[in-house]
Amino acid sequence: MVHYVELPGDRRYPVVIESLAALPAWLERVGLRHGRLLLVTDENIARLHLEPLRAALEAAGWTPRVLVLPPGEPTKALPYLERIYDEALRWGIDRRTPVLAFGGGVIGDLAGFAAATLLRGLPLVQVPTTLIAQVDSAIGGKTGINHARGKNLIGAFHQPVLVFADPSLLQTLPVREWTSGLAEVVKHALIGDPALFALLEERWADVMQRDAALLPELISQAVAVKIRVVMQDEREAGLRAILNFGHTFGHAIERVAGYGHFTHGEAVALGMLAALWLSHRRHPDLPVDRIRTLLQRLPVPGSPDTLDFEALREAMQVDKKALAGRLRFVLLRRVGEAYVADDVTEAELRDAWQFVLESHRATVTS
Amino acid sequence: MVHYVELPGDRRYPVVIESLAALPAWLERVGLRHGRLLLVTDENIARLHLEPLRAALEAAGWTPRVLVLPPGEPTKALPYLERIYDEALRWGIDRRTPVLAFGGGVIGDLAGFAAATLLRGLPLVQVPTTLIAQVDSAIGGKTGINHARGKNLIGAFHQPVLVFADPSLLQTLPVREWTSGLAEVVKHALIGDPALFALLEERWADVMQRDAALLPELISQAVAVKIRVVMQDEREAGLRAILNFGHTFGHAIERVAGYGHFTHGEAVALGMLAALWLSHRRHPDLPVDRIRTLLQRLPVPGSPDTLDFEALREAMQVDKKALAGRLRFVLLRRVGEAYVADDVTEAELRDAWQFVLESHRATVTS
Repeated sequence: MVHYVELPGDRRYPVVIESLAALPAWLERVGLRHGRLLLVTDENIARLHLEPLRAALEAAGWTPRVLVLPPGEPTKALPYLERIYDEALRWGIDRRTPVLAFGGGVIGDLAGFAAATLLRGLPLVQVPTTLIAQVDSAIGGKTGINHARGKNLIGAFHQPVLVFADPSLLQTLPVREWTSGLAEVVKHALIGDPALFALLEERWADVMQRDAALLPELISQAVAVKIRVVMQDEREAGLRAILNFGHTFGHAIERVAGYGHFTHGEAVALGMLAALWLSHRRHPDLPVDRIRTLLQRLPVPGSPDTLDFEALREAMQVDKKALAGRLRFVLLRRVGEAYVADDVTEAELRDAWQFVLESHRATVTS
Repeated sequence: MVHYVELPGDRRYPVVIESLAALPAWLERVGLRHGRLLLVTDENIARLHLEPLRAALEAAGWTPRVLVLPPGEPTKALPYLERIYDEALRWGIDRRTPVLAFGGGVIGDLAGFAAATLLRGLPLVQVPTTLIAQVDSAIGGKTGINHARGKNLIGAFHQPVLVFADPSLLQTLPVREWTSGLAEVVKHALIGDPALFALLEERWADVMQRDAALLPELISQAVAVKIRVVMQDEREAGLRAILNFGHTFGHAIERVAGYGHFTHGEAVALGMLAALWLSHRRHPDLPVDRIRTLLQRLPVPGSPDTLDFEALREAMQVDKKALAGRLRFVLLRRVGEAYVADDVTEAELRDAWQFVLESHRATVTS
């Protein structure tokens, strides 16, 4: 399956959902010429999936140079960016040497930023290996690294020339990474696609079991939502903010609990419950029970009720500074339609958080 | 005087040639809102010119945060980029906080790259303080830093929202920096503007004396050439390469002599003599004596005849790798019209270098 991201200035690139064996043919199709290729990955992916990919590239005439980095969020930082710079320039690159990011969001963002900035921009190929990267982070051109002061504070917009998602790679994901990715799939359904919402409702058991026949379709539908949003707002001037559904509380939860306690997807799952409550208050026709039931199916281990509400509120205030003044929430008007609101009151925040805790408890005890 | 750089996608920004006192009004005109502003400069410029600028900004309602870095090429490197990141994020910025680069090429490239990558892109204001920056490096969106493996290997294209060149700042430039900048002005005349060439021929004494009545016009004409080239080729896919007139030999001369021995402008002045010889060989109608005379007026202290020709040739080969295979020279078809050639032979290189040395000796002894 292929989708296309079309952007102003005749820029256009495919998002391919297919087996990795087809990657070399697609590299050619997007106009990349055989030669050196800088492949950046992490130790987990290298162990599980690197050799077949390397063999396929070599068979097609490429000379991949492979850089294997430690897995995990701390890799998304300046020292590792510098390491990519050093290795790439030591090996020898020119402005046509592609960078292939083979991994999850950390590798995609980091290698993507290296591609954005080596020789003022190298062609970037995203080969995402996690669900969240396949349906979200690998698409749209956001690249960057973290800084001691916060996540993603340094980066660039650099659109890839190709995104290539092989659903079979997801079979080896740890279960918690799988369900975290599902939170983003649910998010895409809620903000942009009632049909995907229905598919998730109907086939949840198959989804959780990573049914190989279902995955390509599931990914394709979620990808389509992301592409639609990116095409309307490449630089996040407005609409693209709806991708932050569940993220106002979500970011605060991650921060207050300490990064790594909840996964990003788990925090967003909780944040979506809060956003659901706020949405339902404004739009009583919203099918709140159906949405809540789907969100409750996303497993969130841990105890959000140990988080201090005041700390969450403060963490949201910090986030707010970055947006110059107002606390913004993405809300749902109906399933498939989201918008940004800045009229949420303090009292509502508290009630929304109660709704999150009640909903979470109901899951745990059910 | 105002020129406009117009780029695809309705992007457009002014290049203003005016006294610094007019800067705050122009900040407003390009849509920047009062608030924090990150001002990056170096110690020399800070000593000579910072206070009036700071006062003007504060009087207009801005809160400038000033970062003063050491002058010189070594500042254009990762540790200083990191320092800008740290200070900017410590002070607190949002996506609308402008970065104002107040300095020569080093500050413009470094602060420009910081602006390109902080929060995935902040508005950039270039306030160039050297001749070379005013007519060349501050315009066109090239930003970046050096790497141990070579110059400008890490960077991004990030167009400024405003370039503001105050000619009076040039009165305090050390003489060698002034004449180095003139090399680029001569280059712009040769590749793009016969009228500017004539102006330089006729008023060379005034030019060398930095006649205050002449400077705005001189800068304006040189700026116009640069803008024309950038508008036709923002990302250096083709035409923009003509800005490298004199640079194939020039880069090799800088490298072989050791960076800092010749200034960039001096090396380019010598390189233009080589390119002139190669051009004349292909285009006998070229007014080689007039051009040579103008180039000889550019003072180049030092002894290029101590440079080893074989070392120069090798240095050009290294440069060539970065362009995937062929040694490329920018040549003149006539005054005001340049193109890229890749048919230069080894024997020609040697003869061209002899022409450089003879021309340089003739200057020194004349």
